[in-house]
Amino acid sequence: MTLPTTETLNLNLDGPVLHITLNRPESRNAMSLTMVNELMAVFESVKDDTSIRALVLRGAGGHFCAGGDIKDMAGARQKAAAGDSDAYVSLNRRFGEMITAANQQPQVIITVLEGAVLGGGFGLACISDVAIAHADATFGLPETGLGVIPAQIAPFVVERIGLTQARRLALTGIRFQGNDALRLGIVHEVASDESELQTALENTLKAVRRCAPNANRVTKALVLKVGQEPMDTLLDQAAVDFANAVNGEEGQEGTMAFVQKRPASWNQ
Amino acid sequence: MTLPTTETLNLNLDGPVLHITLNRPESRNAMSLTMVNELMAVFESVKDDTSIRALVLRGAGGHFCAGGDIKDMAGARQKAAAGDSDAYVSLNRRFGEMITAANQQPQVIITVLEGAVLGGGFGLACISDVAIAHADATFGLPETGLGVIPAQIAPFVVERIGLTQARRLALTGIRFQGNDALRLGIVHEVASDESELQTALENTLKAVRRCAPNANRVTKALVLKVGQEPMDTLLDQAAVDFANAVNGEEGQEGTMAFVQKRPASWNQ
Amino acid sequence: MTLPTTETLNLNLDGPVLHITLNRPESRNAMSLTMVNELMAVFESVKDDTSIRALVLRGAGGHFCAGGDIKDMAGARQKAAAGDSDAYVSLNRRFGEMITAANQQPQVIITVLEGAVLGGGFGLACISDVAIAHADATFGLPETGLGVIPAQIAPFVVERIGLTQARRLALTGIRFQGNDALRLGIVHEVASDESELQTALENTLKAVRRCAPNANRVTKALVLKVGQEPMDTLLDQAAVDFANAVNGEEGQEGTMAFVQKRPASWNQ
Repeated sequence: MTLPTTETLNLNLDGPVLHITLNRPESRNAMSLTMVNELMAVFESVKDDTSIRALVLRGAGGHFCAGGDIKDMAGARQKAAAGDSDAYVSLNRRFGEMITAANQQPQVIITVLEGAVLGGGFGLACISDVAIAHADATFGLPETGLGVIPAQIAPFVVERIGLTQARRLALTGIRFQGNDALRLGIVHEVASDESELQTALENTLKAVRRCAPNANRVTKALVLKVGQEPMDTLLDQAAVDFANAVNGEEGQEGTMAFVQKRPASWNQ
Repeated sequence: MTLPTTETLNLNLDGPVLHITLNRPESRNAMSLTMVNELMAVFESVKDDTSIRALVLRGAGGHFCAGGDIKDMAGARQKAAAGDSDAYVSLNRRFGEMITAANQQPQVIITVLEGAVLGGGFGLACISDVAIAHADATFGLPETGLGVIPAQIAPFVVERIGLTQARRLALTGIRFQGNDALRLGIVHEVASDESELQTALENTLKAVRRCAPNANRVTKALVLKVGQEPMDTLLDQAAVDFANAVNGEEGQEGTMAFVQKRPASWNQ
Repeated sequence: MTLPTTETLNLNLDGPVLHITLNRPESRNAMSLTMVNELMAVFESVKDDTSIRALVLRGAGGHFCAGGDIKDMAGARQKAAAGDSDAYVSLNRRFGEMITAANQQPQVIITVLEGAVLGGGFGLACISDVAIAHADATFGLPETGLGVIPAQIAPFVVERIGLTQARRLALTGIRFQGNDALRLGIVHEVASDESELQTALENTLKAVRRCAPNANRVTKALVLKVGQEPMDTLLDQAAVDFANAVNGEEGQEGTMAFVQKRPASWNQ
């Protein structure tokens, strides 16, 4: 596996964990098309690498991501004026493709949410397996207040927290902080300062390392399929996956480690 | 747009906001067939009026709505005795048609919930985009305690708060107050007195007025479609809607207002 | 109705309530294949008995259920070694069949959750109409930490609390107590000691007895169908069910009891 060269992201591989830092602090890490494409390239490059078990997404400079990039919008406007009627469509749709890919990523995705978590940043937070927020982080969907729509974002907010909460957020544009994000089910944990945030992240990574890599992959694929196909079909396939897991290397090592009261080989 | 003449509802148009007051305080605003039909007529009459951006539903006399109307039930009983075997079916089904229409209403629907929010009143609360409750409001599904079933109501409770919570409420008939309604996700805000309730409503209306009217319409239609069609199809269409919004009047005014650091023209 | 003879379950019929106690305290009520089969036999035997209105599931010896049974797994391993390649598949799938049946059981299912509520025990808790937990109960999905997968369990956790919370629990294996289980929507009530737990159970049973037996059956079938078929089809059928309920014995008795301000005949 070779990580792609990136201009808008800092990549840092630490054992089984790839840290991905959105790195455009001058614009509160606004999600440019370049950043979208680079995120997709990184996701794609590590997808089949079973030695990488978690991706940690966070932003440089105290913000996660303040939304879409104004320069890209200006660029699309020029293209549109020059006759490329699809310029806005494809710019917008590409962001949704990235979120869709991230949601399906086989690794555990952890987001660390500070400062602005707005628009596209909010959307990206919505696909993480574990979301940890600073209590002061600010969430919201400002789109309709600007005369546009949260096209590739609101659907993922609905999937994250259900229609009941999502409809209010999308139609009022209200902003809210970390503790409300926890209450609404957008994030899983809230930290009151930087050091608590770091501890929460480390504890989550410790927990992920206790889980067998392949078992976690198979389990993630399983939970993502619930509601997408008939429950009985899903459970039939899951029973086969279970048998394969028990008979596989991880199942044998896991049983042995349990009997011998020692950490399993993957827990490091 | 002409508002229909109504007997069971008070209508009060205040700029972009239509206040609809259920007005049968002598029966705690029990949902009679007349009221159901009048609500549908009002919804229908304002549906295409983009100058109306929010509907506020509340009850006169300190109650939202205590459920179905006993006199209508007696009327259906007489019709059934006289050989109209469908009398109960059509009476019941009509209520569900009203809730279904309300759920799809293009305007932002806000419910202000006080006193009794029972049976059909509970069902109606379940389709609002923003629900604000007095802490003393009483919620519950009393139907099976009366030997009947919450036929047109329970499905909307499941859509509102999920099966896990809905099954308990439907099968125990327990009553609960505003703070539990908030915890269960039935309402979005709780106010501890009348003045707080009014403030919460005003803040919500202020937020809605900040949102562009057409952008909000398109966004509401979008979030209601999540789970009803394949996600990719939805996101493809949403990208086209986004491009239309950006190129449209609202998108241009929104961008200009943002750059000029002034409120947008629709924010009044 | 004759209850089956059971080896791993204690059965105690108390009026309209069947108490089912998982009774393998020496293994913290680990869910053996025998227990799975006995639970299914009990569910099947009472399914059509309308005199039984609630099933209370709890564990002997201070634990609900600590997960799958190690001896069964060893047995499947021997069968697999002897050439029965389906041994693990069918052992695993059978558990999911039991949960699926339990979820559809026409009676109100109440779980009382103490001590270990892990793996399969967690799965079983996820289908109850009312779940009451001791604050000290411990919940979790330990599977991937052992190198296997929560194959027949995780899908029911997703149905219980949604993908957002379930993906974190399944991919980190973290353990948590009763109050977090309440916050996540896994359980409906938490009791801080044995006596509160008993009171909560009694109050729930009192509430269930106030509800008409057949009305509750029809209502449970209705809420379980939401999302499984088109809403309009569901509401059409529900209107017919409503008319039948009103015209039926329970509807007539319920109306009379209401008018006469006395408890209905089924409320005993």
